[in-house]
Amino acid sequence: MLETIARPDVATAITLQPVRRYGVDAAILYSDIVVPTHAIGFGVDIVPGVGPVVEQPFKEPRDLDRLRPLDPEADTPYVLETVRNLVSELDVPLIAFAGAPFTVASYLVEGGPSRTHALTKSLMHRDPGLWAALLDRLADLAIASIGSQLDAGASAFQLFDSWAGALAPDEYRRYVLPASERVFAELGERGTGAPGIHFGVGTGELLELLAKAGADVVGVDWRVHLDDARERLGPDVAVQGNLDPAAVLAPWPVVAERATDVLNRNAGQPGHVFNLGHGVLPETNPEVLEQVVELVHEYKVAP
Amino acid sequence: MLETIARPDVATAITLQPVRRYGVDAAILYSDIVVPTHAIGFGVDIVPGVGPVVEQPFKEPRDLDRLRPLDPEADTPYVLETVRNLVSELDVPLIAFAGAPFTVASYLVEGGPSRTHALTKSLMHRDPGLWAALLDRLADLAIASIGSQLDAGASAFQLFDSWAGALAPDEYRRYVLPASERVFAELGERGTGAPGIHFGVGTGELLELLAKAGADVVGVDWRVHLDDARERLGPDVAVQGNLDPAAVLAPWPVVAERATDVLNRNAGQPGHVFNLGHGVLPETNPEVLEQVVELVHEYKVAP
Repeated sequence: MLETIARPDVATAITLQPVRRYGVDAAILYSDIVVPTHAIGFGVDIVPGVGPVVEQPFKEPRDLDRLRPLDPEADTPYVLETVRNLVSELDVPLIAFAGAPFTVASYLVEGGPSRTHALTKSLMHRDPGLWAALLDRLADLAIASIGSQLDAGASAFQLFDSWAGALAPDEYRRYVLPASERVFAELGERGTGAPGIHFGVGTGELLELLAKAGADVVGVDWRVHLDDARERLGPDVAVQGNLDPAAVLAPWPVVAERATDVLNRNAGQPGHVFNLGHGVLPETNPEVLEQVVELVHEYKVAP
Repeated sequence: MLETIARPDVATAITLQPVRRYGVDAAILYSDIVVPTHAIGFGVDIVPGVGPVVEQPFKEPRDLDRLRPLDPEADTPYVLETVRNLVSELDVPLIAFAGAPFTVASYLVEGGPSRTHALTKSLMHRDPGLWAALLDRLADLAIASIGSQLDAGASAFQLFDSWAGALAPDEYRRYVLPASERVFAELGERGTGAPGIHFGVGTGELLELLAKAGADVVGVDWRVHLDDARERLGPDVAVQGNLDPAAVLAPWPVVAERATDVLNRNAGQPGHVFNLGHGVLPETNPEVLEQVVELVHEYKVAP
């Protein structure tokens, strides 16, 4: 996968696919949250069927030296070439892509995917100073990477904190929020006006904190009904989601019912990016996704 | 593991361990959620490092025939012998153990552990009748198994719906609640007065529904602060939890702070079963668990 991402022609084609095939209203850069850490030589690879794997996991203060700043033009020229290709080819906005400090840290500390995040949580509790320094470096990587994608023409960005939902709210507030807050703040200070999307799953208890980090749009997975999420987030934050990726495996009448339910729960309020609540499952029938996009585009709020 | 469960001397010793070592206030039967389905010959095994694995997953109506009723005395005599051993040896209550229909169904349909529960959700959407029939059979197994454990002397029971948190609330209400509700109702009708605990993780949005199923006690994992859970559940439902199993890997001052935080958030209200929010992680230091039990026993609500 990292090799595919490093080939601008292929990465461009993959990013264009859902726009061309489904007619969605924006493209999200084909990428992975470990692209920057891989590019600066931390020793990360993506193993098919497993996910990101780290040869020498992050353990001690001297591992910070392995996390030097990202120089996007020198370290990830292929990302910028892909972004420039896309911007010239697309009629819809391109969304920049980066991993959030906590989720990237989890891979670096665990050495791979983890169900419990035990080592990661241990590190944050055992050595909060080292943990904060780690997240600080990862925030820098996200800022540099997203910043360069915006410079290259992306019009919005999405910060993926896929595993934030493993944390208790006070843990998130204390150990994660400051670093993610800095990502949104520093990107905001660049004055591009590019809206920021904060993505996570299983984050029902964290929605307000994900917004507080400075996001314009907060991802809401299918575990929280969209009207409940709206209520927690208030009128000033947009929402993204929230159809269950497993729901689109159902027969069409069920898919239609569930997609319509998401739309009904939003009740026509502005600021809803209709989307699946997590990635497309491999079992998914592309024709059903086409139908979903059509349904969303044709939907009218009941009078 | 199924072999260990089938040896009453070993299963008794394992169940007694935490009571003897930590001085906890109740014992939970050493068991697994697939014990009844295994016992009736569905073809389930537990693979170390993987979990329950099913040779021929549940796919179609004729698979219902493979789910005959459980005759506890004939099919799981070892469970009842273990329960009787324990009741005669223990000074504290024994909690009976069974898997909830949805979580057991997930293993039977997926053929093993699943991160997405895609096949399970597909089945419930594709063929709601077959799904309901499957959950009905599994409810019968849970009722028969728990009923026999109560008859043999257990004083409470816990229904493990470990993966319920993968569902949206309206999906849980429509496709899962009726079967689990029947488990609590039929066990209640036996008039033993044994309280029922309803366990799940990632169930922040489902707490009220888990209570509505008829539970006396609802499990609350670390993602929801206990005071928030109390607020959602009201004064008539007891709570169980909610220390993060990963938190006890921290240095003692952090463990003490977090355990005390759970107790403070309960604020001395009756009906709190202090517990980890999920199973003990293999990395856990048993001495820290001893200290946690001591801390809980010595805790006094701040005046």
